[in-house]
Amino acid sequence: MAGNTYGKLYKITTWGESHGKALGVIIDGCPPNIPLSELDIQKEVDKRKPNSSASTSRKEADKIEILSGIFNGKTTGTPISIIVFNKDQKSSDYNNIKDLFRPGHADYTYELKYGIRDYRGGGRSSGRETVSRVMAGAIAKKILKEKQKTEIFGHTIQIGDILAKKFDKKHLEKSELKCADEKAEKEMLKLINKAKAAGDSVGAIVEIVIKNPPKGLGEPVFDKLDAELAKAMMSIGAVKGVAFGSGFDSVLKKGSKNNDQMTAKNKFLSNNSGGILGGISTGEDIVIKLAVKPVSSISIPQQTISKSGKSVMIKTLGRHDICLAPRIIPVAESMAALVILDFLLQKKTF
Amino acid sequence: MAGNTYGKLYKITTWGESHGKALGVIIDGCPPNIPLSELDIQKEVDKRKPNSSASTSRKEADKIEILSGIFNGKTTGTPISIIVFNKDQKSSDYNNIKDLFRPGHADYTYELKYGIRDYRGGGRSSGRETVSRVMAGAIAKKILKEKQKTEIFGHTIQIGDILAKKFDKKHLEKSELKCADEKAEKEMLKLINKAKAAGDSVGAIVEIVIKNPPKGLGEPVFDKLDAELAKAMMSIGAVKGVAFGSGFDSVLKKGSKNNDQMTAKNKFLSNNSGGILGGISTGEDIVIKLAVKPVSSISIPQQTISKSGKSVMIKTLGRHDICLAPRIIPVAESMAALVILDFLLQKKTF
Amino acid sequence: MAGNTYGKLYKITTWGESHGKALGVIIDGCPPNIPLSELDIQKEVDKRKPNSSASTSRKEADKIEILSGIFNGKTTGTPISIIVFNKDQKSSDYNNIKDLFRPGHADYTYELKYGIRDYRGGGRSSGRETVSRVMAGAIAKKILKEKQKTEIFGHTIQIGDILAKKFDKKHLEKSELKCADEKAEKEMLKLINKAKAAGDSVGAIVEIVIKNPPKGLGEPVFDKLDAELAKAMMSIGAVKGVAFGSGFDSVLKKGSKNNDQMTAKNKFLSNNSGGILGGISTGEDIVIKLAVKPVSSISIPQQTISKSGKSVMIKTLGRHDICLAPRIIPVAESMAALVILDFLLQKKTF
Amino acid sequence: MAGNTYGKLYKITTWGESHGKALGVIIDGCPPNIPLSELDIQKEVDKRKPNSSASTSRKEADKIEILSGIFNGKTTGTPISIIVFNKDQKSSDYNNIKDLFRPGHADYTYELKYGIRDYRGGGRSSGRETVSRVMAGAIAKKILKEKQKTEIFGHTIQIGDILAKKFDKKHLEKSELKCADEKAEKEMLKLINKAKAAGDSVGAIVEIVIKNPPKGLGEPVFDKLDAELAKAMMSIGAVKGVAFGSGFDSVLKKGSKNNDQMTAKNKFLSNNSGGILGGISTGEDIVIKLAVKPVSSISIPQQTISKSGKSVMIKTLGRHDICLAPRIIPVAESMAALVILDFLLQKKTF
Repeated sequence: MAGNTYGKLYKITTWGESHGKALGVIIDGCPPNIPLSELDIQKEVDKRKPNSSASTSRKEADKIEILSGIFNGKTTGTPISIIVFNKDQKSSDYNNIKDLFRPGHADYTYELKYGIRDYRGGGRSSGRETVSRVMAGAIAKKILKEKQKTEIFGHTIQIGDILAKKFDKKHLEKSELKCADEKAEKEMLKLINKAKAAGDSVGAIVEIVIKNPPKGLGEPVFDKLDAELAKAMMSIGAVKGVAFGSGFDSVLKKGSKNNDQMTAKNKFLSNNSGGILGGISTGEDIVIKLAVKPVSSISIPQQTISKSGKSVMIKTLGRHDICLAPRIIPVAESMAALVILDFLLQKKTF
Repeated sequence: MAGNTYGKLYKITTWGESHGKALGVIIDGCPPNIPLSELDIQKEVDKRKPNSSASTSRKEADKIEILSGIFNGKTTGTPISIIVFNKDQKSSDYNNIKDLFRPGHADYTYELKYGIRDYRGGGRSSGRETVSRVMAGAIAKKILKEKQKTEIFGHTIQIGDILAKKFDKKHLEKSELKCADEKAEKEMLKLINKAKAAGDSVGAIVEIVIKNPPKGLGEPVFDKLDAELAKAMMSIGAVKGVAFGSGFDSVLKKGSKNNDQMTAKNKFLSNNSGGILGGISTGEDIVIKLAVKPVSSISIPQQTISKSGKSVMIKTLGRHDICLAPRIIPVAESMAALVILDFLLQKKTF
Repeated sequence: MAGNTYGKLYKITTWGESHGKALGVIIDGCPPNIPLSELDIQKEVDKRKPNSSASTSRKEADKIEILSGIFNGKTTGTPISIIVFNKDQKSSDYNNIKDLFRPGHADYTYELKYGIRDYRGGGRSSGRETVSRVMAGAIAKKILKEKQKTEIFGHTIQIGDILAKKFDKKHLEKSELKCADEKAEKEMLKLINKAKAAGDSVGAIVEIVIKNPPKGLGEPVFDKLDAELAKAMMSIGAVKGVAFGSGFDSVLKKGSKNNDQMTAKNKFLSNNSGGILGGISTGEDIVIKLAVKPVSSISIPQQTISKSGKSVMIKTLGRHDICLAPRIIPVAESMAALVILDFLLQKKTF
Repeated sequence: MAGNTYGKLYKITTWGESHGKALGVIIDGCPPNIPLSELDIQKEVDKRKPNSSASTSRKEADKIEILSGIFNGKTTGTPISIIVFNKDQKSSDYNNIKDLFRPGHADYTYELKYGIRDYRGGGRSSGRETVSRVMAGAIAKKILKEKQKTEIFGHTIQIGDILAKKFDKKHLEKSELKCADEKAEKEMLKLINKAKAAGDSVGAIVEIVIKNPPKGLGEPVFDKLDAELAKAMMSIGAVKGVAFGSGFDSVLKKGSKNNDQMTAKNKFLSNNSGGILGGISTGEDIVIKLAVKPVSSISIPQQTISKSGKSVMIKTLGRHDICLAPRIIPVAESMAALVILDFLLQKKTF
């Protein structure tokens, strides 16, 4: 059913293709009287920009513009429309793949489903769509921070077989790979450069932390907070797994070690649950791990077929991401903010 | 928002508490003219019944009854109401925990959210709620099998650190732990019995397989097929992680190994994607892994607090599950069937 | 899409056929900690009972039963399931019409849409379905009255060409036709008896009044309060028109007479708007008029066709309603309560 | 909840204020492979343009632009974003009313609900918002016409006490007031000019006809086709009543006259039902009447209050509509098209 809208009370609808005229988002349900400027949003969008050897060479000087919903510097409760115009798209670059299905991409399934697709840069299935999510998430993050002191951040905890072993927040702020362990990051960069030299790509695990979340969010049974967060996270391209708290590691634990015991003042002695019990937030930090698959675009030739069913070899020309972790983190933060704010609005209005 | 309804076109609403008068489900949107008997549903519900040392001792002779939506042995397109009356609930068993928050359970968060809870057997947050899901799922599975030849099954692939290493479908059919590797299952049972003797519990990984799924299911961007399936799976109590295809293992792979190359006749040479590309089904088997946490109810005493904030020790009296895998599998199969059928109805009617 | 669920936060799902085993409703989203007994609901359901010559002869001794969602006399925030078992249905009475499409009824369209229908007493399209709405509405009315001092009532203002000309609340309470003008009611009863003698039926206009409604309910643009109320009212069988405030009469007025001027203390000098401006409640009484068509079941023979397309004459045997106004009023009150409570929950929780 | 989105499968979200930078709509769920040009939409938007003495003097040279969802002249199944930039808004014109609540307008309720409002030209509550609906409706109308031969048109059947008495389609096409009776239109124009001279305004009844609609649309119980259409129509500002088929006139009829008898080949001998039985379309023309209140903006001074509660007199300066009928018709046609297409997509895909 459509599928480009997310949320119930803070409802966002994204639109736009990688190489179309523009991309944008409509936010329907933002509370009124929130001070908001284009800068608040631009800041978050800029975090998405590739800035390293680990990233694409496409220049994304995304200049955002607010078209509605703000009056005298404040939200009015009416829909907020935010737009980014695309510039300098060289669509002709994609003529050579217009009849081919790139392995690991959505080319085959879009063609199968719609019988037509905008093949330029992946069209709607491009990662570029996520700029719309970040624009909407920027406002959600701002509201959560100012009204609830809730903060959301993500970091890379594994690339290939290299694990981050310490958490240095200062380093995270400047880290190219959004990794909080400087030493591990150096190893990660080596791995990335090696893969790049081989025309290949690497996978990663990122962790999203929601600090100081509101208590009591989430609905019993189907609309559990972790269920909604799982959907939100899995809706990000390249994410192939999601886990909460001790997640897949809990399999190896006994119940006596995995249960979070409680003590006076509603304190938990551990956080294996990842801040959610019975689908409802406890108030402890919500901790989510995401499996990020290796980038599908690689320069090593691979076997595929054309629209007419002919076998051909394909390889990605030009530069491309080698590891998606740093680009996925701001998107995952945004999606987390959307989920938390939506549930919060179900509890109360500002 | 409410949160006891799942689905858009094949929409189910579940109700009932563990120790209330009855539990049930309403299915709104079932296609008309499907032959359906109470036996079709009873069969699936019976699979949920504990039948081993790995299970609870509570006798659940759940006799289901259809109250509406069927006429002359066929569905009519109107809501199907199915009910199970609870019998012999000894609610008094729960008086000792009515003011305590059991670690790992929803007691604390329900109290926090609602300011009231039916503490008898977990009330609404009890695993017993899933009987309603299985009743609705039974019909979805029947439709998928008869109209699309799609079959859905789950099996236990890991308990604690014991891994299943082979897939013997015959053994699976009679397996107590729903494990397809007879040898591994013996080891698993040993592990369970050891944990039981210690008053403890163990975790597991189960795999859900959707064989021969319809192609082209799933919506781009937010309502991706894997996103919806992730939500559906995470909505099952005790599930703490979900992954598709090579999932968390893809992190260790290079792109050149993880991409599923294609060859003539739309064949894929591997299925690392788990049957979903860009959020849309390819037609390959959909493969999902679930992390099942160790059972929270254990007889080892644990630290907790009472409603009034006093520190106390708590332990679970009587018998209880040691490992949830075999009981979660029919529920996960049902949820998968609900998601697949719902997307299928968005594509076409019967 | 399904279509048996109403509401977003106070969400109800109804099920059951006229001559099936039972009918019921699930309420998902009722706030917790509301004292609630079966009597609260029974009282409202009893108001639906036909008690006059203007009504059906079918005995509807509807004994309601609450199956979930209540603990120690209070709502818990979990789904409330309420059921009424059908008794003494003589389904065989309907064998003669099972292959015929009764004029004015849903027989033809149900057959067209579903290719199957439960013809006994109209099955799902029977007015009997509304008992489920009244059960859900009873709780909504109770909450609105206790938390907001909002009261909702309906009365018959026209039957055929007889208009009520005064409003005597005392008379309304005991009125057979739910008409607040004793003199007019006598004329109305004469008209009904005349139609009855002729084997015919009559139409009516009823007015629903929401006294002291919460201010600020309703969303701009599509989900206006009047738009939602219009949908809710038109969802009642036999209602063919709905109007707010001066409604169709406003057509004959000039703007200078139709505008409600304001004076100090946010007082309005008139209420032509019917309590809603720009889709949002002003706090003035909300006043709705409903056109109720004459009952379709009549004993005068009429031309129709059979399922196989053959022309036949049909007439309704046995007794039936002559005017639906008194039976529609409690349903319309319930629907109004559902809409108001749902919007109120979008504003705040209790 | 939010409230700026309409539809389930063909889902539209509108945004923008009367005097903001731009207005627009996102269509999520448009079927793929529909040939579509900007001209298809521009044509319908131009119909909205005031072109007579009965209309506003504001020049609305609305130049529409498609920003996404079209590739090589066809829809791709991804969201279609359409925008209109506002030009030459003289916002300063509204400074004098920024602290006043205009009678009959949404000023008071928006302020009440949001605590802030864009007072320039009514902001979001302006009729200008409907340009977004017409853009989305243009595509729906095109699809319905090409795929189903369904056509939708509206005409003015009453202004004040002047009734149209004949239906001349040729005249309708060029009619200033969208009235199909040339003689009646002349009388209507006289009435309008008289009201205008007096600084006043007039109301109207318009009729919307859906010719040759698909059969079997609509869901039983709550989501009846007429219930959805009623909501869609009532969501248009200034519409205060809606009725189907014989509507409020059915009140005066006996059942024997109001029932539509049937004859061979599924023919109905009359259409008092307005093409809908039991909430489902019969295939007969769907006929809807709308009560349009007299324009709220008048130059006759009226009593109102300021934000601070002070009593003041207010009158509308400059030119304004005297009768809204001709401007509401294209919007109502669009809303009808949205409802019909949405239900059609629930039945099948193209």
